Amino acid sequence: MPLLVVGSIAFDTIHTPHGSAERVLGGSASYFSVVASHFINPRLVGVVGRDFPQANIDLFTARGIDIRGLTKTDGDTFFWEGEYHRDMNTRTTKAIKLGVFEHFKPELPAEYKDSKFVFLANSSPDTQASVLDQVARPELVVADTMDFWINHHREPLLMLLPRLDGLMLNDSEAMLLTGESNLVRAGHAVRKLGPGFVILKKGEHGAMLFSDDGVFVVPAFPTETVVDPTGAGDSFAGGIMASLAAEPERKAGRLRRAMAYGTVVASLTVEGFGLDRLRITSKQEIDARLDQYRQMLAF
Amino acid sequence: MPLLVVGSIAFDTIHTPHGSAERVLGGSASYFSVVASHFINPRLVGVVGRDFPQANIDLFTARGIDIRGLTKTDGDTFFWEGEYHRDMNTRTTKAIKLGVFEHFKPELPAEYKDSKFVFLANSSPDTQASVLDQVARPELVVADTMDFWINHHREPLLMLLPRLDGLMLNDSEAMLLTGESNLVRAGHAVRKLGPGFVILKKGEHGAMLFSDDGVFVVPAFPTETVVDPTGAGDSFAGGIMASLAAEPERKAGRLRRAMAYGTVVASLTVEGFGLDRLRITSKQEIDARLDQYRQMLAF
Repeated sequence: MPLLVVGSIAFDTIHTPHGSAERVLGGSASYFSVVASHFINPRLVGVVGRDFPQANIDLFTARGIDIRGLTKTDGDTFFWEGEYHRDMNTRTTKAIKLGVFEHFKPELPAEYKDSKFVFLANSSPDTQASVLDQVARPELVVADTMDFWINHHREPLLMLLPRLDGLMLNDSEAMLLTGESNLVRAGHAVRKLGPGFVILKKGEHGAMLFSDDGVFVVPAFPTETVVDPTGAGDSFAGGIMASLAAEPERKAGRLRRAMAYGTVVASLTVEGFGLDRLRITSKQEIDARLDQYRQMLAF
Repeated sequence: MPLLVVGSIAFDTIHTPHGSAERVLGGSASYFSVVASHFINPRLVGVVGRDFPQANIDLFTARGIDIRGLTKTDGDTFFWEGEYHRDMNTRTTKAIKLGVFEHFKPELPAEYKDSKFVFLANSSPDTQASVLDQVARPELVVADTMDFWINHHREPLLMLLPRLDGLMLNDSEAMLLTGESNLVRAGHAVRKLGPGFVILKKGEHGAMLFSDDGVFVVPAFPTETVVDPTGAGDSFAGGIMASLAAEPERKAGRLRRAMAYGTVVASLTVEGFGLDRLRITSKQEIDARLDQYRQMLAF
């Protein structure tokens, strides 16, 4: 099933206690689509500046990512610089230059309008809604959001939620959105705002799924090699959406299996700087880690 | 198999955003043994003061807990007062009066010396070692510890660790003990200090087991009703040790199943103040929740 992702493409400069990486390819749409390319050929919509090198575009195309929705325009590519603290769970943003992303109004190429699986990466709820308006008959629409939109664009976000099959957000953001201090109650409360299911992301502690099937919990895959956590959440989303799109039959438990895929690809992402680890992985390695993960949870 | 627990018996005054409880029965040995009594008749060693009411002793005996190792002595019972913050994950200690627990030197009744499963609840490593010296031929010895002993009694703790089959501690304490900032590496590093297996407790995020079988991860059972987190860790230990002692065959994966039992009993504990919820549960309810938990993890 055609899978569409609309999100950011960025240069990231990343500092961790273990080293640094300068201006590496990042952004939600990059992580999402590189992950997804191990399952399916995703359709990407994003914007980059004149400084975006052909090598990065080649990386996308070499991985079978459909870049007909990638626009190059005057200005600089979105730039982010951040520093991770010793525990690798918290980070400080040192610099943000939105560049061409600041006034990005995503326009879907005509060939993308029949997309069935749609992932609206973190951006303003108005932008996310405008993308949705352009898709003819989506079957599964999932959006990500963040505290900024919850705090400052609450109304448009509340308008968007009933249009979503699923919403992904961090645990603290779910509590912010609902006023609930218990995560389980917060998850149920987010669902009442409209989305068919809700995925709460807890970083190194895994994630929770709230759906008609009840609550499903996944711990993170325990990796010893946390080099760079950047992109873990978008990789998680990519693994979920792409594994669903690649096997779109509505089987029981498909969301759970998708969450497990999301978990293992996120664990690969953090084992290298930027996209380094994801680029050298394979569907075979992903599936092997999924098996390992399944065994790790069995009792 | 006879199961022995040596730990504290206390009066707890607990404040939470949802209410308070005054001088309710608490302490590691109380939680542990009440949980364990749903699986087996545990042997308790502890000390209380003259202020300890017969009603509490009756509670233990009514649940089949062997209290021949319970000593009543001049002075007051250990008292703790604490306040949980809004998120229920952090708490502030408002008062501690060690009372008769301060100079507690556990002495095992002769009838306890053949105990096979031994849980050394959190106390000084010297005290824990002195208990172990009194058990003739233990088969499975597990201890709990905390940051205070790691910081201030490190040498005796390091002497104790090789004598243990298992060590339980919080995630932050494992990092403190080993200097590792990654939890998975910290878990492996604790094992190198001696214990056959290590259980890292992550509170509302579950736990991790490190053993010869590799790493096993369990998320917490997602409960909406967190009334009082006091005693969750000791209940977790009680569920683990008692389910092992009740089915002592060395089957593959028995530690994992025990961890799952520990997880579900801990989730029951937090649903009431003090021991309220544990007292009214049943082995049937525990097993039903274990099934629910298993389904919640399946993909």
